[in-house]
Amino acid sequence: MGLFSKSDYQPKGKHCYITGGTQGLGKALAESLVKQGAHVTVVARDVEKGKRVEAELKALAQPHQIVQFISADLTNHKSSEQTLIKSTEPFNGQAPDYYYLCAGFSRPKYMVDSSLAEFEDGFNGTFWVSAYTARAAVKLMVRQRRVGRITFVSSFLGYTTFAGYTNYSPGKYALRGLADSLRSEMLLHDIKIHIFMPCGIQGPGLEAENADKPAVTHKIEEGDTPIPPEYSARAMENGLRKGYYQITDNIVADFARLRSNGGVPSNNFFADCFYLLVSSIGIPIWRMTADSAVRNGRRAVLADYEVRGIYDNPAK
Amino acid sequence: MGLFSKSDYQPKGKHCYITGGTQGLGKALAESLVKQGAHVTVVARDVEKGKRVEAELKALAQPHQIVQFISADLTNHKSSEQTLIKSTEPFNGQAPDYYYLCAGFSRPKYMVDSSLAEFEDGFNGTFWVSAYTARAAVKLMVRQRRVGRITFVSSFLGYTTFAGYTNYSPGKYALRGLADSLRSEMLLHDIKIHIFMPCGIQGPGLEAENADKPAVTHKIEEGDTPIPPEYSARAMENGLRKGYYQITDNIVADFARLRSNGGVPSNNFFADCFYLLVSSIGIPIWRMTADSAVRNGRRAVLADYEVRGIYDNPAK
Repeated sequence: MGLFSKSDYQPKGKHCYITGGTQGLGKALAESLVKQGAHVTVVARDVEKGKRVEAELKALAQPHQIVQFISADLTNHKSSEQTLIKSTEPFNGQAPDYYYLCAGFSRPKYMVDSSLAEFEDGFNGTFWVSAYTARAAVKLMVRQRRVGRITFVSSFLGYTTFAGYTNYSPGKYALRGLADSLRSEMLLHDIKIHIFMPCGIQGPGLEAENADKPAVTHKIEEGDTPIPPEYSARAMENGLRKGYYQITDNIVADFARLRSNGGVPSNNFFADCFYLLVSSIGIPIWRMTADSAVRNGRRAVLADYEVRGIYDNPAK
Repeated sequence: MGLFSKSDYQPKGKHCYITGGTQGLGKALAESLVKQGAHVTVVARDVEKGKRVEAELKALAQPHQIVQFISADLTNHKSSEQTLIKSTEPFNGQAPDYYYLCAGFSRPKYMVDSSLAEFEDGFNGTFWVSAYTARAAVKLMVRQRRVGRITFVSSFLGYTTFAGYTNYSPGKYALRGLADSLRSEMLLHDIKIHIFMPCGIQGPGLEAENADKPAVTHKIEEGDTPIPPEYSARAMENGLRKGYYQITDNIVADFARLRSNGGVPSNNFFADCFYLLVSSIGIPIWRMTADSAVRNGRRAVLADYEVRGIYDNPAK
């Protein structure tokens, strides 16, 4: 995109499909898109909250704009496909143009302490919750010869991770693998793929995450400052406007991006050279600090395991 | 590890647990470990092949070495747990010391052409096939206060990927997410985590992969030279001996590693600086070449879709 050329990210009049759109980042995006004149479908599980958000969004919309809420469990493939088809009803069956796959949750826990359900649900709630919709969208768009864009939402913890996130980071890394491969395949069909890598976002998602977070995980993250969802949504749309493949909302994520982006398009050449230089020194130092935090937390964790009777035999 | 210090990777007398151990990399590893004096459990699905490999391995072993084959479907969590427990029977119920999670397969296909089962099975056969065993191993080792090492097997395509691998790379990236988080958590318990990132390995796995590979995927990979499984196994064990966290079997994978390793320990500082420098120029060029290959393949793919009636409407 040249300096004065118009971005081809233009939500006005487009049908925007937002998963996890009733709170946090998804809700902030929905509001922004409605204000820009888009038709918006918001998908989430909670019916009551969904209806409330739908009413709020309608209050922001012009009369000709379509705003709809659909309740669905998107970790189920059938429900993901049916929900997408249902969203097309007011549009003569045409696939949505822009997809923002914001659904997901985080409940950090040590692997040693996680039940099987916590481990599997964590994965399904980060990967399949978006992958099923992306697959349904790609199939429908190609069939209909439609163009558009799909934006996955991974996380800073999809670049690099540490103790406490074995039930979260695998899914967030997996989204990166899916987006990286799909970006290449979709060059065949003029469908643009993006992936957003936000840091902490204020709101109910983060509150739930923090309620039960292991002490070591807390310690590693103590310097982080979560940002309001509106800021994060703005960063995401700025990235889309600039045509970036990997989009961040924080300079720390840009450092991690240049250490983790494998063979995907980078953003601004000069800024990226700077990020690469800084991160090549900074990230290894950060990693050593994080490892120290784990080692320093060791005594307390093991004492707790002793008390809780995790071990088969008493300590020597 | 200092220049003259002895590595603490010493398979002799250890119980080594190898998934996918009846062919390719897993089998080559099993042979090497038996020759080094390890006790070896080989897990795979095919009973007939397993019995044959078990006999071959026993022929290489000293009489006191325990060599056993267990048939199991490791994409199932219960079977993964039961198989691990069963492997401990000749060892008074003690958890194995070293784990080599080699099971997995690859069947590249465009997402547009994949059935739901192909998409899901591809994921389960790359991620859960190792994740369930890793989880069972970690829980058992911690309970028993055992130390040891778990080596995941991802792929070059767990660093960077392209068209054709939407059912493979998500699982291989996810293994990286799991290993990265587990490496940190296991500092609490002195269990060492490694991840091996091999390029193409000769054998039945690669033959099956190539049988049905999309033309564009083939084109991007045409310069690759798969190596014999014995070479790959040797590279993996060399890395373990040196204490590397991310282990490669090819300089190309080292270039990708330095562009993709986020916040994990690097290997040799000076070599890694060189890889980072080269890859910062080389990988973006490679990526542009791969993107061109996709664009050049476009006409043929779309013509094929036209013939196969993928589209709802005729071309304009």
